[in-house]
Amino acid sequence: MQTDALVIGAGPVGLFQAFQLGLLGLSVQIVDALAQAGGQCVELYADKPILDIPGIVECSGRELTERLLTQLAPLAPGWHLGHEVTGLTRRDDGRFDAVCADGTAFDAGAVFVCAGVGAFQPRRLKAPGLDGLEGRHLHYHPATDPAALARFAGRRVLVIGGDEAALLRAAALAGLPDQPPVQLMHRRDVLQADAALLARIDTLRQTGRLVFHAAQLAAARQDEAGRLLQVDLTLPDGSAHALALDELIVCQGLSPRLGPIADWGLAMERKLLVVDPATFSTSVPGIHAAGDIVSYPGKKKLILCGFHEATLAAHAAHERLRPHERGPLLYTSSSAVLQQRLGRG
Amino acid sequence: MQTDALVIGAGPVGLFQAFQLGLLGLSVQIVDALAQAGGQCVELYADKPILDIPGIVECSGRELTERLLTQLAPLAPGWHLGHEVTGLTRRDDGRFDAVCADGTAFDAGAVFVCAGVGAFQPRRLKAPGLDGLEGRHLHYHPATDPAALARFAGRRVLVIGGDEAALLRAAALAGLPDQPPVQLMHRRDVLQADAALLARIDTLRQTGRLVFHAAQLAAARQDEAGRLLQVDLTLPDGSAHALALDELIVCQGLSPRLGPIADWGLAMERKLLVVDPATFSTSVPGIHAAGDIVSYPGKKKLILCGFHEATLAAHAAHERLRPHERGPLLYTSSSAVLQQRLGRG
Repeated sequence: MQTDALVIGAGPVGLFQAFQLGLLGLSVQIVDALAQAGGQCVELYADKPILDIPGIVECSGRELTERLLTQLAPLAPGWHLGHEVTGLTRRDDGRFDAVCADGTAFDAGAVFVCAGVGAFQPRRLKAPGLDGLEGRHLHYHPATDPAALARFAGRRVLVIGGDEAALLRAAALAGLPDQPPVQLMHRRDVLQADAALLARIDTLRQTGRLVFHAAQLAAARQDEAGRLLQVDLTLPDGSAHALALDELIVCQGLSPRLGPIADWGLAMERKLLVVDPATFSTSVPGIHAAGDIVSYPGKKKLILCGFHEATLAAHAAHERLRPHERGPLLYTSSSAVLQQRLGRG
Repeated sequence: MQTDALVIGAGPVGLFQAFQLGLLGLSVQIVDALAQAGGQCVELYADKPILDIPGIVECSGRELTERLLTQLAPLAPGWHLGHEVTGLTRRDDGRFDAVCADGTAFDAGAVFVCAGVGAFQPRRLKAPGLDGLEGRHLHYHPATDPAALARFAGRRVLVIGGDEAALLRAAALAGLPDQPPVQLMHRRDVLQADAALLARIDTLRQTGRLVFHAAQLAAARQDEAGRLLQVDLTLPDGSAHALALDELIVCQGLSPRLGPIADWGLAMERKLLVVDPATFSTSVPGIHAAGDIVSYPGKKKLILCGFHEATLAAHAAHERLRPHERGPLLYTSSSAVLQQRLGRG
């Protein structure tokens, strides 16, 4: 897939990186290891108030993500969620070959690493009988938008996990019409989320739409075709409990992992990418970086600083990729070209 | 007046500069040459759409200003609008003496020059008989909030000017209850503003609440006590027209002027302040700068970049002024201290 720009990471900084690149007329593809955009904002503090985004008195991590997605939408970047870029090499012609674990490949003019603290990796479930189920009947932190949840409609689902990520998905599934009771399992009888979500879970339990198990997974069973048949749970008293099932959703936490980025030959300092604050270029020309993953004198890990970093990175890349377009800085308040790119006028 | 921080300029970057300083627990005084906050955002593109503030799909310059003022409000900085800092000297103890044209003086720990393209100066009215009227009965670009306009209630007012700034003030005055007809004068019978404002002016003319004169000011007359009595206008055909008056409002344009800032001994480059992009310190330790007035490698004159610059400037100043408070970066989403400063929890 040929593109001017490949953005790695769909957190707030990656989303604004894509916005600035698109505004400059560059084509953009976005890749993120998670199934949904938002990065840390959605995974770590989706409902926490953020009070220091300039001009936004208060917003949650989820709201900020939604605002940035809306702002980006008219520029129509390509999306590759649930993908992790594993290989990145610079070609002799100065362009880049990037490849994902599943083989998706990009031919990019410039690369933007907005990977925050790294690619979020779900904590894996370990039990006999799970081999080959992932991606088919075993789902780690699936996206929570209605379209993504629709695949679970009418299916017997067990959600494993005890915090907000698990509870949100369990509650959303239990709200689908004609859904069999959703099974929720956590190793302890203590669930952690805000009061409103806990109350929602309580109501669902009382009405029988959700069944909670304080238990641990002992094993899973598949038929010869590799379809999930049932799971065996171990209860606190040591007894066994079998659950007939179609799908397993696992939300046992996400851990960021710098992963393959560390192998791309980019200069690093304490696990951060060293960048030039004039261009936010890494040590490899054409690979830029912005957000929590970068290091430069004075760096503060604030979202608003990442917005600036992404902006200068976009301009530097634009100058390199389109030297003939060099001209005065255009403003969205006065430039018909920019307004048109954003679907105005 | 003693303060940790003196912010020069109340445009978007100055407002966010004050926000970041207040968030770090520093006391802040804000000075701006104009009668209202907003700077270029309000004076040059109050109603133009800005489309590239991260997370704000669209806002006008005026809306952005209002949002930043709301965000800043809980930190309660001191305000000095309509003031221009003329003198700034560094004392031997590392603090600063700043003084305004009217004698207002500050003893500041650090100074932040967020002056954009300079202090906006109104184009002055020239005619015999105006001496001594300014600030009493002659008002250049007065603030447009209801409280500020209240001083003109029931007064016979002539507004001079033909663009949005003049028309907005004329229309606002004509909308006051029991107001004598507002006189509007411009040298040509062509007014410039958006269609909605022009339509509003037309309606006011048709209902007699506003009277338009294509004319030029020949002279003003005062009584012995220095009260404005009348102005003499010269019509296009050379004839004279006298208007009995109480107040003169003049909106004939604003020109930015770097002014005294150029005399403070700060390193400059093409009329811009040279800053270190790690601290946004000028060449004088303790004087920082952010926004359109600064120069550093890669600088783009974008509002969102000014927000970042102001943030790093605030942190650098905080480290210098409160070295004992040095600690890990706090986040508004998790720090009770920051939330409390912003009036939450």
